[in-house]
Amino acid sequence: MSTLAERATAGDVRAMARLISMAEDRADGIDSLMKELYPRTGRAWTIGVTGSPGAGKSTLTDKLIGHFRSKGSTVGVLAVDPSSPYTGGAILADRLRMQRHTDDDGVFMRSLGARGSLGGLSRGTREGVLILDACGYDIVIIETVGVGQSEIDVMRVADTVCVVLVPGLGDDIQAMKAGIMEIADLFVVNKADRPGADRLVHEVRGVLEFLRGRDWVPTISQTVAETGDGVAELGERLLSHREYSGKSGAGRERELARLKTKIEEIMLERLSSQVETLWTDRREELLEAVHERRLDPYTVAEELLSRA
Amino acid sequence: MSTLAERATAGDVRAMARLISMAEDRADGIDSLMKELYPRTGRAWTIGVTGSPGAGKSTLTDKLIGHFRSKGSTVGVLAVDPSSPYTGGAILADRLRMQRHTDDDGVFMRSLGARGSLGGLSRGTREGVLILDACGYDIVIIETVGVGQSEIDVMRVADTVCVVLVPGLGDDIQAMKAGIMEIADLFVVNKADRPGADRLVHEVRGVLEFLRGRDWVPTISQTVAETGDGVAELGERLLSHREYSGKSGAGRERELARLKTKIEEIMLERLSSQVETLWTDRREELLEAVHERRLDPYTVAEELLSRA
Repeated sequence: MSTLAERATAGDVRAMARLISMAEDRADGIDSLMKELYPRTGRAWTIGVTGSPGAGKSTLTDKLIGHFRSKGSTVGVLAVDPSSPYTGGAILADRLRMQRHTDDDGVFMRSLGARGSLGGLSRGTREGVLILDACGYDIVIIETVGVGQSEIDVMRVADTVCVVLVPGLGDDIQAMKAGIMEIADLFVVNKADRPGADRLVHEVRGVLEFLRGRDWVPTISQTVAETGDGVAELGERLLSHREYSGKSGAGRERELARLKTKIEEIMLERLSSQVETLWTDRREELLEAVHERRLDPYTVAEELLSRA
Repeated sequence: MSTLAERATAGDVRAMARLISMAEDRADGIDSLMKELYPRTGRAWTIGVTGSPGAGKSTLTDKLIGHFRSKGSTVGVLAVDPSSPYTGGAILADRLRMQRHTDDDGVFMRSLGARGSLGGLSRGTREGVLILDACGYDIVIIETVGVGQSEIDVMRVADTVCVVLVPGLGDDIQAMKAGIMEIADLFVVNKADRPGADRLVHEVRGVLEFLRGRDWVPTISQTVAETGDGVAELGERLLSHREYSGKSGAGRERELARLKTKIEEIMLERLSSQVETLWTDRREELLEAVHERRLDPYTVAEELLSRA
C-alpha cells in the first residue's frame, strides 16, 4: 500500500483530507490509490441529508453527529457546497456551526465544491465516501445543498436518504417535493415549532399514501434542530431503515445498482477526457463555421467522432 | 425539410411541442430534425431567469412576458422543473399562473423535466432554445428552479442571465450567492416590499464591488413581481445587457464558448450511449465480484473499456 493510503487508513486526518482533495481534483494517481483503498470499503453506513436551502440541514447534521457520537459511532461528513464555476472554491459559511466537533477524533468533516460536470454531485463525493469508509468511519453523512439533480444523485451514493422539509418556504417547494418524494427513505419536517409544520406533515403524509403497500414506507420525523428536539428519535428511525435494508436485501440491490452506475461513470469520465482532444487544431475554424450557420453542431460532432 | 420541422417553423404550436418532446426523450430522428432547424437559428435573444425556490421566478417571468409583448416581441418560455428520477414527469403547479398568456399566439410555454444525466439542465432545454429560435420567437426565457448546477448551466445556454434573489430566505442563500454572483449579468431583488430588501441590495452591491473595472458590471433591480412594480425597468436593463453584448463582442465570444460546449456534449452523449453496451453479458458476474471486493470499480471500468 502507498504511504498516503497507509497513513489515511491508520487514522491520519491530513492524509484523508489530501486523498479527498486528490479525488476532487482528479489528480494523477488517485485511481491507483482508490484501487488500494477499495478492498477496505463496504462497512460504513452512508446517510444522505438533503433538502432545499434554508431547511436547516447543517444544524440538523450537527445534531445527528452528536447523537451518533453518543452511541459510540465515528462519523465522517461530506458537505457538498455550491461553488463558483470559475473559482471552484467551496464556501465554508455555515459549516462553522459544526466547529464544536473539530476537537473530536471520531468526527471528520469536509466541504466539497459542487463542481462536477457529470451530474450534480461532485466527483469528489463518490470517492470521498469510499475514502472515509476505508478509513474506518462507521457512518458517513453527505449533506447536499441544492434542489434537483443533486438530490437524485444523493440516492445513488447513500444507503439511507433523509429529506429535510421546512414549513413556509414558498411554493416552488411544492413542485420540488414531487421529485424528492421518490428518493426519500425518511422525511424530516425541521423547524417543527414554526407555524405550518402540522400542515406540512399532513401534506407529506398525503403523498406517502401512494406508497402504501411498499416494503418500506418512509416515516416522517419532526425536529427542531436548533434545540435538538426530535433528533434522537430521528436517529432511531434512520437506524430502522438501515436494519430494514440489511434484512430485506434492499440494501444489497441498491449497492449493486450503485456500483453499476459508478463503473459506468468511471468509463464515461475516461471517454469524456478524450472528447476535448478530438478537436485537434480545427477548433477555431469549426466553431466559426457553426457560428455562421455554415455547419451545424450535430454534423461537427459526428465528423469529429468519426475520426476518433 | 421534413413535414414536422416545416409545420413548426410555419407557426404550428403542436409541431413545436412535439419537437421539444422528441428532444427531451432523445427520440429517433431528432438529430436530423435539429440539423434542419439549425440554419434558421441565431436570431432569438435567450434570457435565463434563475434563483432559489420561493424567489418568485414564475411570477416575474409572467410579468416579463407581458412587458416584452407590450413592446411587440414574441416570447417562448422553457421552465425547467425538478422531476422524479422514476417518472420523469414535470410538475406544472405554478405554471398555471401563466395561463393568462395561453390565448396569445405570440407566447409559447413549455415545462421541461430536469431529467438530464449530464449536468443540471435537461437535454431538452438546449434543443428547446434552438427550436423556439428557429420557429421565430424573438425572446426565449429559460426559467430554472434550482440551486447549484442548473444555474451554472443556465449561463451556458442564455445570452443574458438574470439572478432573482429575495429577502429573508435563510442562510444557505448566503452560500449559494457566491456561486451565483459569477454567472449573473443582472440581479433582481424580488419581493422588494418585504423587510430586509434594502439590506439584501446592500449586500449584493458589496459583492459587486469586486467586479469593478469589468466591462459589464451587473445591475441590481428591485421588483415586486406580484404587482408588476419595477418590471418595466428590469426589462430595459435586460435590453441594455443585450446591447452591450452585441456591441462589445462579448456576446459573440459567449456563443462560441457555448457552441464548443454543445458540440462536446453531443459527442459525450454519443459516447455515453455506448457505455451500457460495454458490459456485454458479464454485468451480473462483474458487479457481484465488485460487491464482494474481489475486484474494484476502477479495474472493471478499465477492463471493459480496453475491449471496446
